[in-house]
Amino acid sequence: MQIGMMGLGRMGANMVRRLLRGGHECVVYDINPASVAALVAEGAVGAASVEELVSKLAKPAAVWLMLPAAITDENLERVAAHMVPGDIIIDGGNSFYHDDVDRAERLSARSLNYVDVGTSGGVWGLDRGYCLMIGGPDDAVRHLDPIFATLAPGGDIDPADMSENMKTADRGYLHCGPSGSGHFVKMVHNGIEYGMMAAYAEGMNLLKAANAGKADRAADAETSPLQQPKYYQFDLDLAAIAEVWRHGSVVSSWLLDLTAGALKTDPDLAGFSGRVSDSGEGRWTVKAAIDTGVPVPVLSSALYQRFTSQGEAEFGDKLLSAMRFAFGGHHEKPKS
Amino acid sequence: MQIGMMGLGRMGANMVRRLLRGGHECVVYDINPASVAALVAEGAVGAASVEELVSKLAKPAAVWLMLPAAITDENLERVAAHMVPGDIIIDGGNSFYHDDVDRAERLSARSLNYVDVGTSGGVWGLDRGYCLMIGGPDDAVRHLDPIFATLAPGGDIDPADMSENMKTADRGYLHCGPSGSGHFVKMVHNGIEYGMMAAYAEGMNLLKAANAGKADRAADAETSPLQQPKYYQFDLDLAAIAEVWRHGSVVSSWLLDLTAGALKTDPDLAGFSGRVSDSGEGRWTVKAAIDTGVPVPVLSSALYQRFTSQGEAEFGDKLLSAMRFAFGGHHEKPKS
Amino acid sequence: MQIGMMGLGRMGANMVRRLLRGGHECVVYDINPASVAALVAEGAVGAASVEELVSKLAKPAAVWLMLPAAITDENLERVAAHMVPGDIIIDGGNSFYHDDVDRAERLSARSLNYVDVGTSGGVWGLDRGYCLMIGGPDDAVRHLDPIFATLAPGGDIDPADMSENMKTADRGYLHCGPSGSGHFVKMVHNGIEYGMMAAYAEGMNLLKAANAGKADRAADAETSPLQQPKYYQFDLDLAAIAEVWRHGSVVSSWLLDLTAGALKTDPDLAGFSGRVSDSGEGRWTVKAAIDTGVPVPVLSSALYQRFTSQGEAEFGDKLLSAMRFAFGGHHEKPKS
Amino acid sequence: MQIGMMGLGRMGANMVRRLLRGGHECVVYDINPASVAALVAEGAVGAASVEELVSKLAKPAAVWLMLPAAITDENLERVAAHMVPGDIIIDGGNSFYHDDVDRAERLSARSLNYVDVGTSGGVWGLDRGYCLMIGGPDDAVRHLDPIFATLAPGGDIDPADMSENMKTADRGYLHCGPSGSGHFVKMVHNGIEYGMMAAYAEGMNLLKAANAGKADRAADAETSPLQQPKYYQFDLDLAAIAEVWRHGSVVSSWLLDLTAGALKTDPDLAGFSGRVSDSGEGRWTVKAAIDTGVPVPVLSSALYQRFTSQGEAEFGDKLLSAMRFAFGGHHEKPKS
Repeated sequence: MQIGMMGLGRMGANMVRRLLRGGHECVVYDINPASVAALVAEGAVGAASVEELVSKLAKPAAVWLMLPAAITDENLERVAAHMVPGDIIIDGGNSFYHDDVDRAERLSARSLNYVDVGTSGGVWGLDRGYCLMIGGPDDAVRHLDPIFATLAPGGDIDPADMSENMKTADRGYLHCGPSGSGHFVKMVHNGIEYGMMAAYAEGMNLLKAANAGKADRAADAETSPLQQPKYYQFDLDLAAIAEVWRHGSVVSSWLLDLTAGALKTDPDLAGFSGRVSDSGEGRWTVKAAIDTGVPVPVLSSALYQRFTSQGEAEFGDKLLSAMRFAFGGHHEKPKS
Repeated sequence: MQIGMMGLGRMGANMVRRLLRGGHECVVYDINPASVAALVAEGAVGAASVEELVSKLAKPAAVWLMLPAAITDENLERVAAHMVPGDIIIDGGNSFYHDDVDRAERLSARSLNYVDVGTSGGVWGLDRGYCLMIGGPDDAVRHLDPIFATLAPGGDIDPADMSENMKTADRGYLHCGPSGSGHFVKMVHNGIEYGMMAAYAEGMNLLKAANAGKADRAADAETSPLQQPKYYQFDLDLAAIAEVWRHGSVVSSWLLDLTAGALKTDPDLAGFSGRVSDSGEGRWTVKAAIDTGVPVPVLSSALYQRFTSQGEAEFGDKLLSAMRFAFGGHHEKPKS
Repeated sequence: MQIGMMGLGRMGANMVRRLLRGGHECVVYDINPASVAALVAEGAVGAASVEELVSKLAKPAAVWLMLPAAITDENLERVAAHMVPGDIIIDGGNSFYHDDVDRAERLSARSLNYVDVGTSGGVWGLDRGYCLMIGGPDDAVRHLDPIFATLAPGGDIDPADMSENMKTADRGYLHCGPSGSGHFVKMVHNGIEYGMMAAYAEGMNLLKAANAGKADRAADAETSPLQQPKYYQFDLDLAAIAEVWRHGSVVSSWLLDLTAGALKTDPDLAGFSGRVSDSGEGRWTVKAAIDTGVPVPVLSSALYQRFTSQGEAEFGDKLLSAMRFAFGGHHEKPKS
Repeated sequence: MQIGMMGLGRMGANMVRRLLRGGHECVVYDINPASVAALVAEGAVGAASVEELVSKLAKPAAVWLMLPAAITDENLERVAAHMVPGDIIIDGGNSFYHDDVDRAERLSARSLNYVDVGTSGGVWGLDRGYCLMIGGPDDAVRHLDPIFATLAPGGDIDPADMSENMKTADRGYLHCGPSGSGHFVKMVHNGIEYGMMAAYAEGMNLLKAANAGKADRAADAETSPLQQPKYYQFDLDLAAIAEVWRHGSVVSSWLLDLTAGALKTDPDLAGFSGRVSDSGEGRWTVKAAIDTGVPVPVLSSALYQRFTSQGEAEFGDKLLSAMRFAFGGHHEKPKS
């Protein structure tokens, strides 16, 4: 079927490529004409303006936005201005799901359909397919089914007695519920991702410390002694351990596959400084959990480790040192 | 090759089966003669005593212990009593790695080899293979290679330029280092497992709470209000969400496969009460991290959630209520 | 000076009493006439309506609202309707500070002054005085200084060279900044309070467990063994320990004073079930920290323990048990 | 009464001074003769050797060790070598309580009494008195009562109906139980201290961030946006806030007194780098909690923040960045 794509960055461009491979017609637009030209060369139909993008699509027109969250709202309005009742706008970016709920309210007053799609897959999606978490009105989501089916990885199992939800879930896309639910589910997905990543990172860090008993240790009042150094004498091969866990262990996962690859390439991870960014979803997940009273100590801890890696614990740490000096006369050791 | 197996519970018996399938000769012993008889019927050689078990093995004899950790030490001594220099004892159970270090010291004084093997795979290992994390002296571990290769899942990749470690890791077993290192790596593996499980559990719990805005909410001073109920109106299909994440998402894993299966069978998990046991490895992991000064907030949080599910937070919670009553006159709401 | 008080619950009534004792004239109003009558009997001036409350106050009229957060907004509008430019509304309740920022914006458009006062002191404030954290425009706050000075505990130190802020802080009240800042500081205060309470609760819970080595312990696969029972043989007197820490230790505090009192009265805390409410401020604190990227693992952990005590971890716990059953065939132990 | 003191560092010397002021006779010894001479000048009796120290004491001799934990064991043996049945050794340092249990076992076989005393008070103890948590045999502890009473802060309340424990607790010292229990209680005390300190540090850090909405913020994919900057416009005076909380608020404490003092002196804490040491007790507390299955998320979080401030999260953080690069092509931002 036909679809418009606005925003041809890495994600948007690759999604167009996967759709073209799947036999769909893609009308593409980006503020950067070179991005449009590149995809036209691969078989897409180019558009030079938002108006042209919408006008080149048969009714009901469906335009997929793949833009940074900060500029999605204004561009959504630009697209909507050229649409007629029954048309569909899809946001496949990283929007906060509250915005989806609000947009759906606004657009439905104009009889436009709004569909939010949480998209996982990153740089691997072009070949592996994208896992799609979809929110929006039934008719619009059903109309877009061929698009979702092509973008998603696909799957083999399809027993007759499976529910409709399960059938598409098994192929890697799911209509989760009304507008906002797609990005809500994607948000929680990323929250879980933070927790899993932290679990591996903490465990690997401990494996690396398994030789702590071999090191000389300062014997001053500001250094806690290692009680039984004889039990910390292991020099472990982290890359090999990550690899072996991929085969038959309980902790095997795609993140572990990536971890094993990263450690093989660069066992000391010397190419990284350890400043870990976070991009919003982890924060929103914890805030939603707090709103609803759900305890999420693991997801929060993972988030706070990132904040701390960004230097945000510093003033608090200084205050701890100040208190220690005040009650016990303890002097700080120099930062290593 | 030939190997002795002592302890024919679910794990031990299945490992014997996998070894028999792989063409090895297994001499088996268990305190329960019926367990021995069952495996003899499947092709194993039976032994009626520890002495017989050892005597039926060609030199160097290798006996694999697959016993509850609490009784491993005494049985290890019973086996060792019949061994001669060069023989090998393998502990494939869930021993604390300190015990391995101590045993290796004791046995090497008698020129016996001690090998510890952390074994992951659970009830699935018979068919999928067991992921093996091995600690012990080089010669003994090399001698046992055919056994490990059969128990492990196997693998396809074997590029010529791969290190020896990587070659076997890719097939699902790894010689991690000296005695104790196998169980050390397995211990950290389980610590990570706790963290990953908790990440999924917290995320799923939040997904379930996505309809919190639909519920009536007590409007008393002891109930925190839900600020924006309009954003918590989603009734989500958790089983379908777990399924869709298995296809192309960043959080796909074997634990997610199991989670999806469990939610398909019993969407409300009504068959469970939520008392979550822990079996030692998670505790040891956190204690090792504390010894070595490695921050493990995620692994610890996961562990504490289990303690709390076992009722161990109760007195602390009562004290919190007592303080609230003391400073603010707050009365507890009844437990639901 | 003269002040109006609307909302004569426990907090509001006691604040009126403290103001009367301090020589101020209080005009009081409550939806419940009996509450008004009771304070009139103690020297207050009664009002039978909002209109009367405002009309009995000399200009600029200052009305202090001491109401549940949920009904503050509507009552604030009722009061404002009878006011003239220059008048002052004070909210001393537990409002979310965002609401303060919004109200100040609305009211300043009508030339009314809005002052938010975070109030700590609970049932003890009448005699000890209330610690006041104040946000609002300079002139209005300065005008109310005699009221704040009376409500606050007072203090002795007033060196000449102390800043204006420090002078009043030393007496227990502080103009923190513009509207909203009073409740913001109070919010963080309560977040800290949660963390401190949890620190004591966890520590006391551990002291209580110091005799764990005396108990019989199930020796099954679902119970983690206690490694060195000989080190857990202490039957400790928690009430005496709380008492001794009040004298010269680093952890002495007012919360510890209350803890010692509670344990003296009821050493087993049998009067409490352990369902710990939370009243909003702890949640808002963590959400503000997440907004600003500040790591708050301790404050969050304290909050989540309360959620868990309210039963909110249950579904997640069930999922953990379901996973354990799926990968290892582990059966749950019954809940105690 | 008469007591020997070995180890005349800051703590030991001040304790001798407090005892001398209280009318006790102190025989003092230190490896450094100048330390001995200094106290002799203040009225103590000097000893030039361990043997002389013991010999100058009337029977039963009582020697108090105030030494670094690492050298306590060997010096304890040196003292014991000169003792006779009935004599008493007191360890007032920061020993691990397991060591106390083991020492008591060893010494009681020689009919020597061993008393462990957890001592809180730091540099303030000389004037305020030391809070003493005492473990050991009844007779020996009772014999030392005059010493404890002098070292402790003292107290006013002594109602007739108070238990013996409560009577001394109210004066700042407590016989907690058998050998080891003194240091056990002190250990948990310090664990709580870590949690309380972290609660203040996190809260103060958040107060400092209350103006986050004023800052320019990078608008790139690696920076999470601040959703509502209008609510983060407060420039707060942290020193004044710490001060105001000291007067009538729920979070008042001695640690808050110190915090207020530190912030008054150096509002930006520029004299500190934020590398926070830990000295053992916090680690032991968490390990004891894990042994006994007690959930301590707050105490653990506080401990891990210190580990992280010491640089111990670095490898884990690098791994997180490596995973983010692997699945999403995310490049690290430079460390600030």
